[in-house]
Formats: sequence, C-alpha cells, structure tokens
Amino acid sequence: MSAATACRDDAGATYVALSGGVGGSKLSLGLSHLLGSRLTIVVNTGDDFEHLGLHVSPDIDTTLYTLAGLVNEETGWGRRDESWNFMRAIEALGGPEWFRLGDGDLAMHVDRTRRLRAGETLNEICAKFRACLGIKPRVLPMSDDPLRTLVDTDNGVLAFQEYFVREQCRPRVRGIRFEGATKARASSMALDALAAPTLAGVIICPSNPYLSIDPVLAVPGIAEALRKCRAPVIAVSPIIAGKAVKGPTAKIMGELGLAADAATIARHYSGLIKGFVLDEEDARYEPSLGLPTLVTKTLMKTSADKIALAEACLAMCDKLRAGGDARRAKARDA
Amino acid sequence: MSAATACRDDAGATYVALSGGVGGSKLSLGLSHLLGSRLTIVVNTGDDFEHLGLHVSPDIDTTLYTLAGLVNEETGWGRRDESWNFMRAIEALGGPEWFRLGDGDLAMHVDRTRRLRAGETLNEICAKFRACLGIKPRVLPMSDDPLRTLVDTDNGVLAFQEYFVREQCRPRVRGIRFEGATKARASSMALDALAAPTLAGVIICPSNPYLSIDPVLAVPGIAEALRKCRAPVIAVSPIIAGKAVKGPTAKIMGELGLAADAATIARHYSGLIKGFVLDEEDARYEPSLGLPTLVTKTLMKTSADKIALAEACLAMCDKLRAGGDARRAKARDA
Repeated sequence: MSAATACRDDAGATYVALSGGVGGSKLSLGLSHLLGSRLTIVVNTGDDFEHLGLHVSPDIDTTLYTLAGLVNEETGWGRRDESWNFMRAIEALGGPEWFRLGDGDLAMHVDRTRRLRAGETLNEICAKFRACLGIKPRVLPMSDDPLRTLVDTDNGVLAFQEYFVREQCRPRVRGIRFEGATKARASSMALDALAAPTLAGVIICPSNPYLSIDPVLAVPGIAEALRKCRAPVIAVSPIIAGKAVKGPTAKIMGELGLAADAATIARHYSGLIKGFVLDEEDARYEPSLGLPTLVTKTLMKTSADKIALAEACLAMCDKLRAGGDARRAKARDA
Repeated sequence: MSAATACRDDAGATYVALSGGVGGSKLSLGLSHLLGSRLTIVVNTGDDFEHLGLHVSPDIDTTLYTLAGLVNEETGWGRRDESWNFMRAIEALGGPEWFRLGDGDLAMHVDRTRRLRAGETLNEICAKFRACLGIKPRVLPMSDDPLRTLVDTDNGVLAFQEYFVREQCRPRVRGIRFEGATKARASSMALDALAAPTLAGVIICPSNPYLSIDPVLAVPGIAEALRKCRAPVIAVSPIIAGKAVKGPTAKIMGELGLAADAATIARHYSGLIKGFVLDEEDARYEPSLGLPTLVTKTLMKTSADKIALAEACLAMCDKLRAGGDARRAKARDA
C-alpha cells in the first residue's frame, strides 16, 4: 500500500488545492478521484469578466466542467459536444466575436448572472452548480468580491481576457496587478478549509503562478492562512524543460526577466511552500532548490497521469507531515 | 394593373401595420414583399417578460425572424435550424424549463438585455437588429416602456407568458388588463408613421384582438392617432369559420361570453376601422357588418397566400381612400 493510498484510507484527512484553469483542473481531477468530498479547490476568479452583460468565470467553469466530466478534452476548457449557434447569431447582430461562448456553456453564464443580480454570491452559486453537476469536491471561488487581473503590456494595460483571449498573449508583459485586491474578502469557506484541524496538505496546482495563482494569494488572508496552516503546502511546477505545457507562462517569465525554469517557480513560492514537485526532465534543478522535492512525471495527458501525479502530491504531503511530526517530537523531547 | 400594384408604384405612399406575433407577422411578410421600406410595423410588447434575467420580446422577435426569413415555419415562431443545448444545460443546473430558449434565439435576448442595461431603448435596439438582419420595413416596439398583459383567469391573475406558454392557455379567462398602460409612452416613430402625410393605409393584422392588438391600442396616443389619421384603417379577421387559425382567440372569446365569429371581431374594432377583411367562409356575416368589407381567402399557408392577402388589403385601402376623396370632393363642391 502506497503512502497515498494510506492517506486515502484516512477518512478524516482533508486537502486544499489552489488552482487556475486548464492545468490546475487536471491535477484537481486527479485529486478528486482520490479524495472525493475531502478535497476543497480554491479557484482563481481574477479572470472573471462581464461579456455581453453576462458574468463569465472562466477558471471556475473549467474546473466544474473538468470535475463533472463535461470538459472538452481537446481544448481543456469549455464543454465537449458543444454547438455554436449563439455565436453565429450574435455575430449576425454585429456583436463581439473575440470571446466565444458555446451554447451549452451559456447556461452557466446566464444562470450565474441572474443569480448574482438576485443577490446570491459567487460561492453560493458555485455550490449550486456543483451540486447539480454531481461534483464531490468543494469548488470555491477565492472571493465573492471583484479582484481583477490586469496585465500591463507594451500595448497598454489590458484586462486579463483582453490579453489572454483577444490579444492571444501577444503583447509583451511589463507587469501584472490585481485591481480590487485590497478590498476583496477571501471566501470564508476557503479560510475555514485552510484552518481545519483535519487539513493534511495544500497543493498549489501547476497553473500559471503569475496569472492564476498570484491572484488567489493576493486575496487578503489567503497567503497568511497558507503560512499558518498546520499541514504542508506544496507546489507543482507548471514549467517542464523550460516550457509551459499550455499557455503563456514561459513567455511571461522571459518578459519579466526571469529564467523560465522550475527553479524560478520554486523561488516564486519561497516562504510559502514546504515542498516542490518537478518534472523528471528538470531533475538537475533539484539540488539547488533548498527544500524537499519530488521528481516525477508531471505532464498529465491521460486520466492515469492525473491520478498518478495526485498520488505523488499526497505522498509528498504525507512525508512532509511525518517529517514535521518527527521534528516536532524531537524538539519536544529535546 | 390591379389597384394594389398601382399603389405599389406610388413610391410616396406609406403604410402602417399593427401586429402581434405569428398570425400578424405572416401578413406583415406579405406587406413587406409589396412595400419594402414603405411599411412600418408597430408590434405588441405586452408579452415581453424577463426570463432567466433576460429581456424576451416574443412578438418583436417573431416579426424580425419572419421578415428576415429566419423563422421556423413549422411553429411560426423561433428560428429554423435551431439547436437546444442551452436548454439542456439550464435544466441540468435546475433552471426553469417551461419557456424554451433556442441557442440562436438566445443571441437576441442576451444582446437586447445588455443594450437595455446600457441605456438603449427597445426601439433603438430593434432598429439595430433590423439593420443587421437586412429587414426593410421598420419594426417598432409599440412602446419603450413596460406595458404588461395580465390575464385574469379562474386560476388567478397570470402574466401573459405564464398563461400562454406555461399553462398553455388552459385556464378560463375572465378578463385581460394591461399593467402600466397609463404610463407607457407610445413609440414616437410609431406616432410619426401614423401622422405622416404620405400615409395611405393602416392594417390591423389578423392577430388576437384581445391579447395582441388591444395592448397596442392601450398605449396612450395610439388609438387616438388611428382615429385622427388621414388614411383608412382596416382590420383583417383572425377568426375563420368560428375558429382561430392559431392560438386561443376563439377559446377566449367564448370564455368572455362573445360569439367567436368575424362579426364580433369587426364590432370589437368598431369606431376605429373603416373597412374589414374577412374570409370567404364567413361571407354570410358581410351584410350585417355595416362597414365596407372585403371577402377573400385569409388563411395564409404559402408565401403566395401572404402576398395575395397583402395585395387585397392594399387594394381595399386604395378603394376606401378613393371613396373618401370622392366624399370629401363632394362635400367641398356642395
């Protein structure tokens, strides 16, 4: 029996994952297979925006679709078997076409918008969607308040979706900031999950640290809760052999004057994490990182890949917990 | 050359149609073929309602779809070649399923709602949609203000769509009223069209008089403009041989204690109309109506049917105008 399996048998142990969209949701799916309702996923909402008068939560929906088995596996986002009649009709009405909303996908945006206008919170709405879609882990928007990721580029300051979708990450990034960060209140359920006495590990998913995880950490109280929490916090590198699996992580790192490698990612989370998971291709960085590491296959193509990486993460949390317990026992005995 | 053709050759003559949804839009399409941009259609918005947070204008959209050649000809409303992925997804989220919004159709509701929230009026929005869809006649919501058709039934007071769609016209109707009618301001373009010196005729389409035309007439200023206008106002009976072609007109007439026949329809518009068009099957009512009549085939199945009925209506307007001119000349000479 592996450590991860042992951990899974421990019915009381709970875990928290921090995640952005596509990359993060793949690991979340693996964790979900192992943990079910013992997993809480705190998801970035810095990418949320209003489009055609509808509140769109891209990372939340990617997570929900992935966990519900509804995701388009080719793209990693949106629904599979999607149709596009709405977009065709919107274009015929002269509407904007740069952000594509699928017909089935629209249901999330229309219902979310209606519920927000009726006074429900993003977290309440997400809980309803999750229940309807039969998803076991809790999926929590990091905050019910607006915190918006703005990308400062050589083309001016762009809202995240303008940069990411409309401009397809072409402009050169000078900096990233999170509008509304000082006022946003963290999801109380997220803070509760991080403070739970049952917490056995926190996994920072292999999402873009700058665009997807930093917004979560920018919500007042979340980084502090990570530092204070009783369980080990670990991160999985989204960079493999100098490249991002998907998205502009490596490009942005270059533009920000950073080396696009696993070591830079580990340094980015320095002070926050107790362990780091990196790909076999990056094993050479291991000695220099100065914190416990796990070298494994981090590319997740199949369902088995996702579960294997999730197992590895849980095993690392187990090991770090055991080490921490031993250190604490040693300190107590000394 | 027929009178209608002559009329069509008169490039300056303009016409106004008052219309509800399915039945009215069929005649509007026939008129549109003959008149193009010389036609103004004033459409009922008493059926408008908010559904899933979206502003739905059923009669406006039926008119736009019909004139743009996009309508589902089997149902008479909605889009042809429609898909229903949005509805499937909304149902999976526990949303209401009684009012069905097609995927392409949603574009109208989403874009209309967004524009209304941004401060545009129903008339401005309809003008944009019309331009995008390449529709020549002007299609005017009767008012930019909310006037809501309420149906008093043995099942309580129901909003129009609750009665019409959700309850499928099953409850017994006791009365009909138009909430907001005193405050609603008529579309200024509709009033302008009715006051135009070029106006050669007004056609009340064969829509439900109680549910579709009365709301238009309830908007302050519209009935008055009809009474004052220089051109003949005529109505086409929606009842053929005691039955409505579509919808609950005959059923409602029975429930309101009225005989469901063409004569009752003519009496309903008494004081407002100068001529009445009824079906060949109802020729026996002709002598008793006490106003100029035209007996013709009023059932519109094919495109040719629609154009033929439109031709007949224009011919009747011509004839009434000629008669009126002769009477006026006679009075002047006397």
